[in-house]
Amino acid sequence: MDIAVPSETRPDLSPGAAMHAFMRELFPLCRSITGPGLRETIQRIAGRIPLQVHEVPSGTDVLDWTVPDEWTIRAARIESLDGRTLVDFRDSTLHVVGYSRPVDAVLPRAELARHVHTLPDKPDLIPYHTGYFANSWGFCVTHRLWESMTDDAYRVVIDSTLAPGSLTYGDLLVPGESTDEVLIHAHCCHPSLANDNLSGIAVATWLAQRVLAQGGLRRPRRLSYRFVFVPATIGAITWLARNEPTLDRIRHGLVLTCVGDPGGFHYKRSRRGDAVIDRAVAQVCRDRGISLDVRPFRPTGYDERQYGSPGFDLPVGCFMRSPDRGFPEYHTSADNLDLVRPEALEESYEVLGEVLDLLEADRVWRRVDGRGEPQLGRRGLYRLLSAQQGAACQESLLWVLNLADGTRSLLDMAEHSGLSFRELRDAAALAAEAGLIVETA
Amino acid sequence: MDIAVPSETRPDLSPGAAMHAFMRELFPLCRSITGPGLRETIQRIAGRIPLQVHEVPSGTDVLDWTVPDEWTIRAARIESLDGRTLVDFRDSTLHVVGYSRPVDAVLPRAELARHVHTLPDKPDLIPYHTGYFANSWGFCVTHRLWESMTDDAYRVVIDSTLAPGSLTYGDLLVPGESTDEVLIHAHCCHPSLANDNLSGIAVATWLAQRVLAQGGLRRPRRLSYRFVFVPATIGAITWLARNEPTLDRIRHGLVLTCVGDPGGFHYKRSRRGDAVIDRAVAQVCRDRGISLDVRPFRPTGYDERQYGSPGFDLPVGCFMRSPDRGFPEYHTSADNLDLVRPEALEESYEVLGEVLDLLEADRVWRRVDGRGEPQLGRRGLYRLLSAQQGAACQESLLWVLNLADGTRSLLDMAEHSGLSFRELRDAAALAAEAGLIVETA
Amino acid sequence: MDIAVPSETRPDLSPGAAMHAFMRELFPLCRSITGPGLRETIQRIAGRIPLQVHEVPSGTDVLDWTVPDEWTIRAARIESLDGRTLVDFRDSTLHVVGYSRPVDAVLPRAELARHVHTLPDKPDLIPYHTGYFANSWGFCVTHRLWESMTDDAYRVVIDSTLAPGSLTYGDLLVPGESTDEVLIHAHCCHPSLANDNLSGIAVATWLAQRVLAQGGLRRPRRLSYRFVFVPATIGAITWLARNEPTLDRIRHGLVLTCVGDPGGFHYKRSRRGDAVIDRAVAQVCRDRGISLDVRPFRPTGYDERQYGSPGFDLPVGCFMRSPDRGFPEYHTSADNLDLVRPEALEESYEVLGEVLDLLEADRVWRRVDGRGEPQLGRRGLYRLLSAQQGAACQESLLWVLNLADGTRSLLDMAEHSGLSFRELRDAAALAAEAGLIVETA
Repeated sequence: MDIAVPSETRPDLSPGAAMHAFMRELFPLCRSITGPGLRETIQRIAGRIPLQVHEVPSGTDVLDWTVPDEWTIRAARIESLDGRTLVDFRDSTLHVVGYSRPVDAVLPRAELARHVHTLPDKPDLIPYHTGYFANSWGFCVTHRLWESMTDDAYRVVIDSTLAPGSLTYGDLLVPGESTDEVLIHAHCCHPSLANDNLSGIAVATWLAQRVLAQGGLRRPRRLSYRFVFVPATIGAITWLARNEPTLDRIRHGLVLTCVGDPGGFHYKRSRRGDAVIDRAVAQVCRDRGISLDVRPFRPTGYDERQYGSPGFDLPVGCFMRSPDRGFPEYHTSADNLDLVRPEALEESYEVLGEVLDLLEADRVWRRVDGRGEPQLGRRGLYRLLSAQQGAACQESLLWVLNLADGTRSLLDMAEHSGLSFRELRDAAALAAEAGLIVETA
Repeated sequence: MDIAVPSETRPDLSPGAAMHAFMRELFPLCRSITGPGLRETIQRIAGRIPLQVHEVPSGTDVLDWTVPDEWTIRAARIESLDGRTLVDFRDSTLHVVGYSRPVDAVLPRAELARHVHTLPDKPDLIPYHTGYFANSWGFCVTHRLWESMTDDAYRVVIDSTLAPGSLTYGDLLVPGESTDEVLIHAHCCHPSLANDNLSGIAVATWLAQRVLAQGGLRRPRRLSYRFVFVPATIGAITWLARNEPTLDRIRHGLVLTCVGDPGGFHYKRSRRGDAVIDRAVAQVCRDRGISLDVRPFRPTGYDERQYGSPGFDLPVGCFMRSPDRGFPEYHTSADNLDLVRPEALEESYEVLGEVLDLLEADRVWRRVDGRGEPQLGRRGLYRLLSAQQGAACQESLLWVLNLADGTRSLLDMAEHSGLSFRELRDAAALAAEAGLIVETA
Repeated sequence: MDIAVPSETRPDLSPGAAMHAFMRELFPLCRSITGPGLRETIQRIAGRIPLQVHEVPSGTDVLDWTVPDEWTIRAARIESLDGRTLVDFRDSTLHVVGYSRPVDAVLPRAELARHVHTLPDKPDLIPYHTGYFANSWGFCVTHRLWESMTDDAYRVVIDSTLAPGSLTYGDLLVPGESTDEVLIHAHCCHPSLANDNLSGIAVATWLAQRVLAQGGLRRPRRLSYRFVFVPATIGAITWLARNEPTLDRIRHGLVLTCVGDPGGFHYKRSRRGDAVIDRAVAQVCRDRGISLDVRPFRPTGYDERQYGSPGFDLPVGCFMRSPDRGFPEYHTSADNLDLVRPEALEESYEVLGEVLDLLEADRVWRRVDGRGEPQLGRRGLYRLLSAQQGAACQESLLWVLNLADGTRSLLDMAEHSGLSFRELRDAAALAAEAGLIVETA
């Protein structure tokens, strides 16, 4: 596969096209929960945002787990006995089962069959399998190919190493005025699968760039932002173990996965169910008039399970387009760069950007003097001629002035009034400017 | 317009007809937020119930507002240059925009057009407009008339005064055993509009008469009742400012408006949403088998906005038949004495009377000894022969005896059991008489 | 009627058939709120489970009531004046109105009619009536028979005694490790009516046998179980009065009635509405895939009214198949041993058995260390090869590990996750065995 031209040399690209190009760069790398593919991927992300890259030695205890040995895959193929290569890892990283131990043997077909995975009902697709603790080996091939392999025996070669090394991950903290953190998480341990989860990696990277571009003296960021790029499960557990002292700063979090296909948006609530992040995602979709399929928390799925384990119970939801197992290409070779569309990535990026903006802008307001409505006219907040078809007083301004009693945030007000967050935020800015409301500490 | 014969000289009238006749008296007066029309109206109400009439000088600070100059309108007309009067305030008080400053000028039609309001889609109706702070002037006419006025120029005369004076309002406190207050509010600042709000004025006045007629040594009123007749917004704010020390006595309140048209009942909840008054109005309509369209609180509409401002948050809802903007005659010359029907006024009056009765009768009860059911038979509370088709024990009595645990009022019991408030009230009286329950302080 | 062979001599019977046979034994006895029929019935139950039998003297004060005189009925008949017996108590215990005082008289038909009850719309059925405090007498006959009795006069004989004696009841406490009690109640005061409530008596008796058979050194019962067999109302009140000091041990309770007809299950919630027993009954029916018609508490019906009186407010619901007044045979001679089916009794018994098992097994769990998911593989709790079509981790195990935060019981977890109580209980056992969770005190 070609090494794509890094998209930073092409400033004319829309964010969606640029993210897609970044995914194209990363697609051929054979990621796993450890190893050179993961390491290279983390480095490439670090080439775009100032990640701290961490290496955690195999054997390190992390909560109830232990960082495993590192897996390096150099080659893997199945040959016919007359030397033709029938299956080659260089054609697709999906061909070798993750964490396959080294093999160099001639095997009868029947024995080989015990190590070959196919999808009989999708005969042209290669499935995705891993065996992190299996201490075994395997290949994934199309069912069509497997059925055409009718020899009595084959030679299998897997040139891999499983040995003490380290697990790689990257994280980035963008500090704000407050130590309260928004966590954005993308898992990085899948080989050549685009939606799951190069799409999450790309969107998370672009959100980090967006956050870094905001802020500055003129408008400092209120919240801090933490971006975490880790292999799933063991990586999340490692990150949690190494950041325990500051986990209580995480006020809102999102696991990003499968955000690039053309399907509708799905959101899985945090374990708490009614955390601000759960409400914020729903509010933004309502405000944008896009449908959102909201599902309750379940302890299956992605790393929201680790953040939402009972000892942490962090307010972290999972944001997706088509959900895991909810699209037919899931965990097959059909989850490729054609499935993922630039415009779908871009929409995910924009929705999430608006969610972050909401979290930034959400405040609790209180009237300086809440007795009666204020006289808006003399403050230039009211058109002077009251007409029959409704006063020119913005309804949003009246809502803010009515609900600002020191107990309600703008998000509360949006949910209560049915107006959009943006309208209420703008009305609150107007009211604050006029000295009618102040922020509650 | 004729001065209608005061209805107190006609004792044969039903309440509905009497209220309609009172509205007929008041209809021709040109009310505004200040001025002789408002003052005369308050005095006429004071002729029927013992209102305290207050005059608050222009320039008085009231919360965030200031009492404006007083507006007096003596004449207003548009003449053709050959002396014919085309539009005359004496034909309808709606013809002049409220708070129009004096004018005596000849103007080109195009210039006059900037000061004329019509309803193109309702060509035979005169709209209602005010310009309290506009420092301008204007006329309202039928679109049909305006289209027929094709001269190049017209003479406009508005003989009005805008000068320091006072704002008039009236209130009445009918004390009861408790200082807890029920507030009934009607705004009085609209000129010749019947439903909005001569209907509210009439019904409020008749409710005050009803409350005054109740009470006395034999059955003293439990609650106190406060009737407030004010110009909208500035009047409510003035009243709130001048009664701040005792506002915490207000336990239940209703703003009455548009209660005379034949439409169905609408109720807008207090800001709290679940105050006793909100529940009481719903309960009475359920008990009477009439439909009630309940809407949540919004900071638009009438003076419930002032009572429900965050610094006060008083439990005051808004009771209407067709809601503001919910009937086509709203704020036009079609909101007249034909739109408002005596039987609709009377029904509103009866429903509200039953709401007041509920508030009076609502108590928290507790069993003297709540262990097991009491033996009803020996107290004459049970028919002696238990029959197959249900015991003769009233279900309401059993509900009261079961729910009276010192935490539930009769209204709680009605909502919980699905029975009517009246049934439970009567059963509670029976049980109290038998010494089985006592009121909880 | 035949005296049925006691079913304990027929070990081949299914529980349903055995319960039906027990009902057949009891059916002919003329039970009332006191008297030999009730006494004999309690003794027969005591022949199967180790009941304590109590006799409470007439005149004893019990809460607001007084134990009445005892009623003994020996004979009752209506004869034609020429000596033919037309109505005989020996044909059906329903023929005489409960608590009829003695009578030996010749009466005109018209006078007799005042003491005769029929069901004109069900002309072949004998209704059921009582007159505990009526100080009167009466007969119940089929309407068909009454209409055929056209003589001018009849002789009526009721050979009964109403005199100080005692009220009989039986209860059984099966102690467990905890003093927390589960109460099972069946009323025993109806004569020859099968569903109401010989079915409740039979099922309660068999549940007591089930509870007694459980327990022992290997698996001691956690909860204590209290079985109460009383005449309705006065019996429940008597039991409550005599057990007041320990009523606060009752954590869950069920009144059993009409549990033998083929209708669907109905459940009436405790007064609290959301007690564990209310949730447990619903959960078991969900888990068994059977429909349950759940109704809110009402202070009418059976003795849940006494347990649910405000001075006690015990968490006691009422479990039924067809509810009282919900089947056409209710309180008529058609409520007989053909209406009640062995398989319906058995299903009721099994559902209730599963409810008791749920109460026994319900615990609050907490993770020993709740930070992150535990590594299941090394504990043998995870199949080693993660496959595309879902991990082999039982979802129930993941739910337990996620929800076990010391605040949730297994029943909470079942309601929250949508999984069955049994699955979660088994997963919790597995997790506890692996040392991952412990019970919260």
